[in-house]
Amino acid sequence: MLEVHDVPDQIMDRLLGRLASRGLDGFVHFQTSRARDNVVLHYLSGVQGLEDSGVVISLGSEPVLLVKDFEGDRAKNSGRIKDVRPTTTIPLDKAMVELEKVIAEKRLKGKKIAIDDSELSVEVYLRLKKMGIELVPFSDQVKDLRMIKTEQEIDKIRGAAMIASESLKELRKHLDENLTESQLGALLSLDIENRGAEKSFIHVQFEQNASFPHHISASTRVASPGFLVVDLGARVEGYNSDITRTLTVGEPDSEHNRLFRTVQQAIEEATRRVAPNAKVEDVAKAARDVIASAGFPQPEHRIGHGLGLNVHEAPIIEKGFPGTLQEGMVIAIEPGVYIKGKTGCRLESDLLVTSDGVEELDTPFCPLVL
Amino acid sequence: MLEVHDVPDQIMDRLLGRLASRGLDGFVHFQTSRARDNVVLHYLSGVQGLEDSGVVISLGSEPVLLVKDFEGDRAKNSGRIKDVRPTTTIPLDKAMVELEKVIAEKRLKGKKIAIDDSELSVEVYLRLKKMGIELVPFSDQVKDLRMIKTEQEIDKIRGAAMIASESLKELRKHLDENLTESQLGALLSLDIENRGAEKSFIHVQFEQNASFPHHISASTRVASPGFLVVDLGARVEGYNSDITRTLTVGEPDSEHNRLFRTVQQAIEEATRRVAPNAKVEDVAKAARDVIASAGFPQPEHRIGHGLGLNVHEAPIIEKGFPGTLQEGMVIAIEPGVYIKGKTGCRLESDLLVTSDGVEELDTPFCPLVL
Repeated sequence: MLEVHDVPDQIMDRLLGRLASRGLDGFVHFQTSRARDNVVLHYLSGVQGLEDSGVVISLGSEPVLLVKDFEGDRAKNSGRIKDVRPTTTIPLDKAMVELEKVIAEKRLKGKKIAIDDSELSVEVYLRLKKMGIELVPFSDQVKDLRMIKTEQEIDKIRGAAMIASESLKELRKHLDENLTESQLGALLSLDIENRGAEKSFIHVQFEQNASFPHHISASTRVASPGFLVVDLGARVEGYNSDITRTLTVGEPDSEHNRLFRTVQQAIEEATRRVAPNAKVEDVAKAARDVIASAGFPQPEHRIGHGLGLNVHEAPIIEKGFPGTLQEGMVIAIEPGVYIKGKTGCRLESDLLVTSDGVEELDTPFCPLVL
Repeated sequence: MLEVHDVPDQIMDRLLGRLASRGLDGFVHFQTSRARDNVVLHYLSGVQGLEDSGVVISLGSEPVLLVKDFEGDRAKNSGRIKDVRPTTTIPLDKAMVELEKVIAEKRLKGKKIAIDDSELSVEVYLRLKKMGIELVPFSDQVKDLRMIKTEQEIDKIRGAAMIASESLKELRKHLDENLTESQLGALLSLDIENRGAEKSFIHVQFEQNASFPHHISASTRVASPGFLVVDLGARVEGYNSDITRTLTVGEPDSEHNRLFRTVQQAIEEATRRVAPNAKVEDVAKAARDVIASAGFPQPEHRIGHGLGLNVHEAPIIEKGFPGTLQEGMVIAIEPGVYIKGKTGCRLESDLLVTSDGVEELDTPFCPLVL
């Protein structure tokens, strides 16, 4: 796989283009705690897992990454920003002194600076406001940029989808071993890590436990006949996959069969709609129409979502939501049917929108079979 | 282990007390994405993993938890807030309509409302500002509250520390199997999950790779003699442990021995200072003095930190930082010495400040031996 800094820096160029076209002079961000994936800094710098770190980007000048003292070498070696400045970033007021120096050095005082208002905390915002810069909410633009993945980002998601699929396929071999949901989850987890990815999350839900969309894997033994819904995400260099299969334990009866066929048809109909310029709500409607025709209850959750540094990101794939699919988007489609207290079935596949249609990232490695 | 809602609701009572004593009328929060642990909502509601959810707390009235449609049952069953309102929380503007209704119902319009400015996003802040309420930054108070753990919180951290320790002890058995750092990490991960906890993070760093504080576990084989630094966190119901041991592979030479003894003495001296009313900087100084006396370089990272819903939270245990330890705090102490390019050694233990001293949460299960 190519190193991010060996290829043209599309992400930074795209951001600079958006800033320029909107009359903005720069972009600034600072993040204290390391959330699951400090997405803004990771996205812009290419460096994973930064906390107490920030970035100052100005038009016509090199971007600057401020990191904790001991993170300098790691940030330089793994990221795309060359001007890395290790410094004292704790407590926040010290970091703000350093950040303000860079803002002054880049002649951004008195200028209009974009912020990711979805990710920036109020405590940083209130301090930035005192620095004599005009802050412009820009998170919609950042989300919009993040929807269209670069080749390097796609490679990472493809890798994560492949690993999740292969691990899930491997799990089928353990279904008759009388294990609990938790134990099956632990086996999956180990398999994912052995393949070189990180586990992002794993939900293993058997029969009645699968009759609700979310359930924490527990001590229920997977032994009697029924549906085992396995929803899992693997992560490669911070980029996520998110796939679900419904596996059968024992022989499915005719109602289970009908349930599975309905969800399978729902995901297939939705996938068929995926192409550049397709309306996101048409993709969701295709899945819901199949479920409605079969007389099953509709899932309370969304039919699909974008996928990348976050497991859930733009676009939302649902009826009533605006927008169209575009080449370079990666989305997860996940129709499900839940018969409360009885059983449930969900299938989820990760799809890349290509120039002329769709590439299924996971199903070649683990088909949607019953 | 007691269910949170079976015991007096100390967390909510403490928050209400702080609000009242500062002349504030309530507290409001809304979080869109599920960060690693949506700490504010988890802390206040007792419900894990909420996203696109919010809380409205007013003095003299029941708190309200707004969650996504399908999360209602789970939030009611696992949390401490009785008035759970499942609703449409996506996109954000719909959620804000619902949130404003609750704010009006609780007669908070025109009142002074606390926010966690460290955690609240600017996009929510700017919308709340338009609702005719006065927003008061309150994150310092929330951090202060979160430093003193309830019995239930301590039980979870204790459980997480016990599991991390036992898994790490188990790992010693695999050191002569010629495995890579990643493979050892995967074994640890499986063992943690088999014991019923979640893996929060695992760093396995051998010899030269251990000469930098952070390194992503990789394909280096653990075979030749050297130090293996293993830093791991397990999580129980959202609460974290964070421990480190330095294990020897093969026979340590005299310089490795001296390095280990120094770090061991550093953690022991620091631990000895832990008690109610001890200054946090004295605890850090005790560790750094031992390292200085031995003539080794000082670690660039902090000597210690609080532990709870976040792996790193208040207090910071370092020279130059104010404050004292208090009964009910849980902290991790982690002195280390890094000989760049050669080797490194770090030891980290999780400590509960008790009424008369300290309880070591991890070392009884996995001692700090060489």
